[in-house]
Amino acid sequence: MSEIRHDWLGDRWVIFAPERNGRPDEFHLDPSSHPQPKSNVECPFCPGNESETPPSRLVIPEPSNSGSPSWSVRVVPNKYPALETIDASNHSIDLCQSSWPSPVGDRSPGDLEAILLHRRSLVGAHEVIVETPDHHCDLSEMPVDQIDRILDAYQQRLVHWNANPTLQYAVIFKNVGPDAGASLAHPHSQLIATSFVPPDVARLCQRMESFHNQSGSCYVCSMNQIELRKRERVVLRSEHFLAYCPFASLLPYSIVIAPIQHSSSFHLIRPSIRSELAAMLRKVLTAQAKLHHNMAYNYILHTSPFGAQWERCFHWRLEIFPRLTKVAGFEWGSNCFINPILPELSAAQLGGVF
Amino acid sequence: MSEIRHDWLGDRWVIFAPERNGRPDEFHLDPSSHPQPKSNVECPFCPGNESETPPSRLVIPEPSNSGSPSWSVRVVPNKYPALETIDASNHSIDLCQSSWPSPVGDRSPGDLEAILLHRRSLVGAHEVIVETPDHHCDLSEMPVDQIDRILDAYQQRLVHWNANPTLQYAVIFKNVGPDAGASLAHPHSQLIATSFVPPDVARLCQRMESFHNQSGSCYVCSMNQIELRKRERVVLRSEHFLAYCPFASLLPYSIVIAPIQHSSSFHLIRPSIRSELAAMLRKVLTAQAKLHHNMAYNYILHTSPFGAQWERCFHWRLEIFPRLTKVAGFEWGSNCFINPILPELSAAQLGGVF
Repeated sequence: MSEIRHDWLGDRWVIFAPERNGRPDEFHLDPSSHPQPKSNVECPFCPGNESETPPSRLVIPEPSNSGSPSWSVRVVPNKYPALETIDASNHSIDLCQSSWPSPVGDRSPGDLEAILLHRRSLVGAHEVIVETPDHHCDLSEMPVDQIDRILDAYQQRLVHWNANPTLQYAVIFKNVGPDAGASLAHPHSQLIATSFVPPDVARLCQRMESFHNQSGSCYVCSMNQIELRKRERVVLRSEHFLAYCPFASLLPYSIVIAPIQHSSSFHLIRPSIRSELAAMLRKVLTAQAKLHHNMAYNYILHTSPFGAQWERCFHWRLEIFPRLTKVAGFEWGSNCFINPILPELSAAQLGGVF
Repeated sequence: MSEIRHDWLGDRWVIFAPERNGRPDEFHLDPSSHPQPKSNVECPFCPGNESETPPSRLVIPEPSNSGSPSWSVRVVPNKYPALETIDASNHSIDLCQSSWPSPVGDRSPGDLEAILLHRRSLVGAHEVIVETPDHHCDLSEMPVDQIDRILDAYQQRLVHWNANPTLQYAVIFKNVGPDAGASLAHPHSQLIATSFVPPDVARLCQRMESFHNQSGSCYVCSMNQIELRKRERVVLRSEHFLAYCPFASLLPYSIVIAPIQHSSSFHLIRPSIRSELAAMLRKVLTAQAKLHHNMAYNYILHTSPFGAQWERCFHWRLEIFPRLTKVAGFEWGSNCFINPILPELSAAQLGGVF
């Protein structure tokens, strides 16, 4: 039987329709026939090809110092950036931070055109975090220490961009597999920092603030407590972290990893706690890989927009989205998702493979 | 150079990054290697297999009466519905239309749980429009008369559900190809009608209403006038319709087809104008197919939620989304899309192949 659940934070409804999981799929391919990377492409992220990327902005060395390659994690500017990179820009802060002319008002046709066709240049940063020298090593197979070095790179780059007064927001994300939007197979993640807070992120911040103002507590803290009490969606917990399948997950087998105690910004994480996160991330991704071999997925590190304004009400978290189903026409039309797998079932299955 | 454009209606920003179109793609496959449907699956939508679907709710006969099959278009309930179908439901209208307990307020932990874990049953309708008896005939290859019969089926089903007082909204959409979420290859589209207006659709309605209140005109009417004056994004126009690539398209080669004159609801379309739409839809899909062989796409018929409330400010339109790129981690995290192709270029290329 179908039910709808309200994603309070996103203020949207998710339709859970277990019956749809039984429908025939003429196109379904087994994972071994998934597109494999062309073998004739020289990988720009492999050791020896460092000159094919722009110069490194951060290098985390091999801890052993035992030979080549000398690096363990590298951060480089994206060669094909989504935005005009801030270093090369002559734009003033005023231009970047100007607000949209939002009121429509009593205007002439020319004014209306300026509102409806509003465009401007965009500055920010777009970086690639090359996660390992090993082209074939998935995150779920890496030593925990290596994952911690990747998280260390995330942290250092967020600290760096957070100090730039032109920037207001950064997000770190990872695309694995072509179905998740990856164009290169070598393990990597990306950072995009922008001179504005994207409207949808701003809306989430406002929801969190409104929740805090009304209830006196943080939304994610409250949700953590509920999930710990109910247990039915919890996949894993450690001393400082909780991993659970969200009550109104948009996609099957989605998992959120959140610090149990309130913490607004990932870049403030302490190293000992960071390595605990690395261990949990590895366990969760290993469980996903056991259930869904060669699975395409995204993960996203949601951290507070820059500035002290959101400290009280924003709570950072890492969200993993397996890309086992496709977003179809209904979702595009209504932004209302249909998920054939209840999160309680996802959590039980993921919890069952540890 | 990158720029951001504001999608006024969706109140979101789209990043246009032409540089990203040049990036390498290790996973790219030529269209001939796209997944093909398994050949050993009996198609439930082919003539002779009518008993594999629930009984028809609408049959549009072959106009020639020249033999079998006797039907040209069939509408059947979806065998794997996304929601509990209204015919089988015992739910009262009160239950369906109750609103969310949205204020968080000064509540006990138990109350908070009821708000954050809010769920309820969902009733509505989910139907499949089988567009032709011919398993292999894409919409872009059908005679215009056949496309008009499909639009006739859309119209008749919308008229039907619009009369049901329990329902508030319906959307018609089409998924073509596995990358667009299709699970069956036989040409078909779907209708979902719901007992509520999805929050994102409600937000668009409110934006349209606010635009109308402030400017005295409909948002889509205003946009039509601007596009007709600028011409740089117009793909095609006929007496009553305009096809253009939206200024802040989320995806490359997206096209909107809208009636030039104000009209809130597709189900009120006159037959002579409907056949003009059929001809335009065929031309636009043929141009897409010429540019992108075997392209996966969705289209969505946005029509007004039921009731007279939105007549003044809602303007129906058909939106076509080619699925040539994948939605990746950044988009999932921020709902801010990165489009590597400017709509002016999309429109010029599409306009060049007629």
